[in-house]
Amino acid sequence: MGQAAQAPSGTRDLLADEVRRRKAAFDMLARIFESFGFDPLETPAFENLDVITGKYGEEASKLIFKILKRGVHEASGEADLALRYDHTVPLARVIGTHGAKLPTPYKRYAIGPVWRADRPQEGRFREFVQCDIDTVGSLSPLADAEVVLAIARGLEALKVRKFTFMVNSRKALYALLEVYGISAADGPGVLGTLDKLDKIGAEAVVKELTSERGLAPEVAESLVGDVAADNPSRIRRRLDATEEGRAGLAEIDRLIELTTSAGLASERIAYVPRMVRGLDYYTGVIYEVEADGYPGSVAAGGRYDHLVATLGGPDVPACGCSIGIERILAVQGSQDTEPRGLDVAVTVLGGEENLMRLAADLREQGLRVGTYLGASGKLAKQLKWANDQNARIAVLHGPEEQAAGEVTLRDMRSGDQTRVPLDEAVAQVSELLEGS
Amino acid sequence: MGQAAQAPSGTRDLLADEVRRRKAAFDMLARIFESFGFDPLETPAFENLDVITGKYGEEASKLIFKILKRGVHEASGEADLALRYDHTVPLARVIGTHGAKLPTPYKRYAIGPVWRADRPQEGRFREFVQCDIDTVGSLSPLADAEVVLAIARGLEALKVRKFTFMVNSRKALYALLEVYGISAADGPGVLGTLDKLDKIGAEAVVKELTSERGLAPEVAESLVGDVAADNPSRIRRRLDATEEGRAGLAEIDRLIELTTSAGLASERIAYVPRMVRGLDYYTGVIYEVEADGYPGSVAAGGRYDHLVATLGGPDVPACGCSIGIERILAVQGSQDTEPRGLDVAVTVLGGEENLMRLAADLREQGLRVGTYLGASGKLAKQLKWANDQNARIAVLHGPEEQAAGEVTLRDMRSGDQTRVPLDEAVAQVSELLEGS
Repeated sequence: MGQAAQAPSGTRDLLADEVRRRKAAFDMLARIFESFGFDPLETPAFENLDVITGKYGEEASKLIFKILKRGVHEASGEADLALRYDHTVPLARVIGTHGAKLPTPYKRYAIGPVWRADRPQEGRFREFVQCDIDTVGSLSPLADAEVVLAIARGLEALKVRKFTFMVNSRKALYALLEVYGISAADGPGVLGTLDKLDKIGAEAVVKELTSERGLAPEVAESLVGDVAADNPSRIRRRLDATEEGRAGLAEIDRLIELTTSAGLASERIAYVPRMVRGLDYYTGVIYEVEADGYPGSVAAGGRYDHLVATLGGPDVPACGCSIGIERILAVQGSQDTEPRGLDVAVTVLGGEENLMRLAADLREQGLRVGTYLGASGKLAKQLKWANDQNARIAVLHGPEEQAAGEVTLRDMRSGDQTRVPLDEAVAQVSELLEGS
Repeated sequence: MGQAAQAPSGTRDLLADEVRRRKAAFDMLARIFESFGFDPLETPAFENLDVITGKYGEEASKLIFKILKRGVHEASGEADLALRYDHTVPLARVIGTHGAKLPTPYKRYAIGPVWRADRPQEGRFREFVQCDIDTVGSLSPLADAEVVLAIARGLEALKVRKFTFMVNSRKALYALLEVYGISAADGPGVLGTLDKLDKIGAEAVVKELTSERGLAPEVAESLVGDVAADNPSRIRRRLDATEEGRAGLAEIDRLIELTTSAGLASERIAYVPRMVRGLDYYTGVIYEVEADGYPGSVAAGGRYDHLVATLGGPDVPACGCSIGIERILAVQGSQDTEPRGLDVAVTVLGGEENLMRLAADLREQGLRVGTYLGASGKLAKQLKWANDQNARIAVLHGPEEQAAGEVTLRDMRSGDQTRVPLDEAVAQVSELLEGS
């Protein structure tokens, strides 16, 4: 036989402990989202190609996995389906498909895999889980606040302890451009450059604004000075001078008020004027969440009142947030993952009927019970198996015990053994497990 | 806007209650499999094309979804990946890939979607969940018994009450052919025809055996008479005359002994000589599970000692079983699915800070709490929303209550209202929910 086949490039086989760890995290997030009244939604792994095409821009569209037509149509080399690229386009499609059946507003969470043909050599997975919550059909600032609070609870539950929601508003950003006399046409480019502040520093940003974005040096320096200042009081004063600026500040302040009213610690959320989410589709508040010990952001979201329409659904207001769950799980990967062992390992040296009955009774108690399935008739070898299984107790039922209708219970940590009648074994095992 | 886009043909959007119902079933099965010491395994949604190709036969290979090469290679019209068609081929691949890291024997369960381009007009889904357990690396009859017991517990938990494991053995079937002087070359064809007994009846089977399989009429009649008899005593006597027949009967009887020893009711498992699983890869015991009220079989499996090698893994013995979970869920679909409502619906007529705090405190109690996110300032409209959400209690906090630092709690079923101070609201809600 040649070299063993591997999982495809950029994908992983998830073995026992990893599946359990991930499932525990996803279930915990689902419980939290449910407590806020969000409903689960599962869409198919693929969509019709035209639902996906043209929704993500040119660069991203190269990363879409397309599925060949089937059967006799395969020879055409044409695709008619595409794997899910995110949960947002399917959400927009679902709102179009099921509109009237859905509650208003529609609050949904989606925790499931998406597929992108990113370069695996850069440490990116081609199959990874995205975790989104969105509220569609509400303009209320309470909707934004609920999303932020649900994500904050999620991060706490995932033991991401020191995090900060850095809040801004697209309105405040547009007003800033207005205050500095930057045209609507130049605006997106200028914001794109400002977004690099944390990465390349103030000096480099000023340089790019003057050399590439056509800003006068004094305008660029003043703008960067305002935006990068630790204390946002100066920028607040400037924004207060325009109607859109006041609206932007008001929605930022309202989000902070509502979330801290609900118990979010005030150091967990702040207005950060330099936070510019790259994506054009946001229309109101925007936020990214930074956390100590985690690279990049651990969550990001905001309000995007026309995105659903842009993606082919009806024109309804919406807001939502995505948790970077794979990033969080990757950082926590090294921590405390205790492999799940057997509670009871049943060795087999004859008397199988007795042992099958005992194993069934122990499982009825909620215990995890495995039976020796190997070929060895040697107890030592079977006890090695029990040890490899991280078993806490081994059941022994050799010829002597069989004759007496008994079993020996061995504590696999201490090596202590107790012999008990078969019909007392379940009670005795429970006692041993409680004591250990 | 034209007609709303739909989910692709043969796939479904799973909305809230359906996701919850399915997840509850899958989680329950996972807990049972864990109690038997099976470990979860999750493989990627797709495999490299050559892992999948040539594993399923010609007909089935037309049903494989293939994924186009990406980026500049897309124009070639060639595929290099394929969506998972079942959980067995990935299992064989995983055993090759991770061999040494896996426990011996390796007992795994897989509950997850597979994709097949079947005809949706025949009511078949193109995306559906398969649920498999397999033990790889053990020849012990205890391994077969564990699989049967775990599946039986799963069926009970899924409330499939009246089911029967119809057990046979490939060895017994081969011995039967020997006894009747049927050549090895004709064997598979004859067994294929016998497999239709339940569908087309004894007479038609005899006819097909004589006209298409070349059996003499008296041989065909005797064979069908033996196989279709309610009482298997005659066939037992015949099989007892050959070595392979005795081995086959012994493994059937052992499986029944071991499983009934463990508490499986004796009417839940029986030797059924006419049960011929169509698939060639089985080598030992085979079984299908029939259940009252369910079409076809609700589970099927057996021992297949060389399948893993055939599928590209090492040559290791194995046994396993698959539960027809989609079939079971489809039959149960009409039954008792209660939509999940809100425990508490918070109406909003000002005083948002108080209400956000109260909602957070109620969620801390494990309750499901939603806040009114619509635009109406009218209580009647907000109460209609609460009603649509199946809320049990609504919180009211109008101008009067705001001035007094109080809330009104409305029991949405009885319409009874109680006014309490804000800081007693959590305790009062708990009391009302316990009482209702």
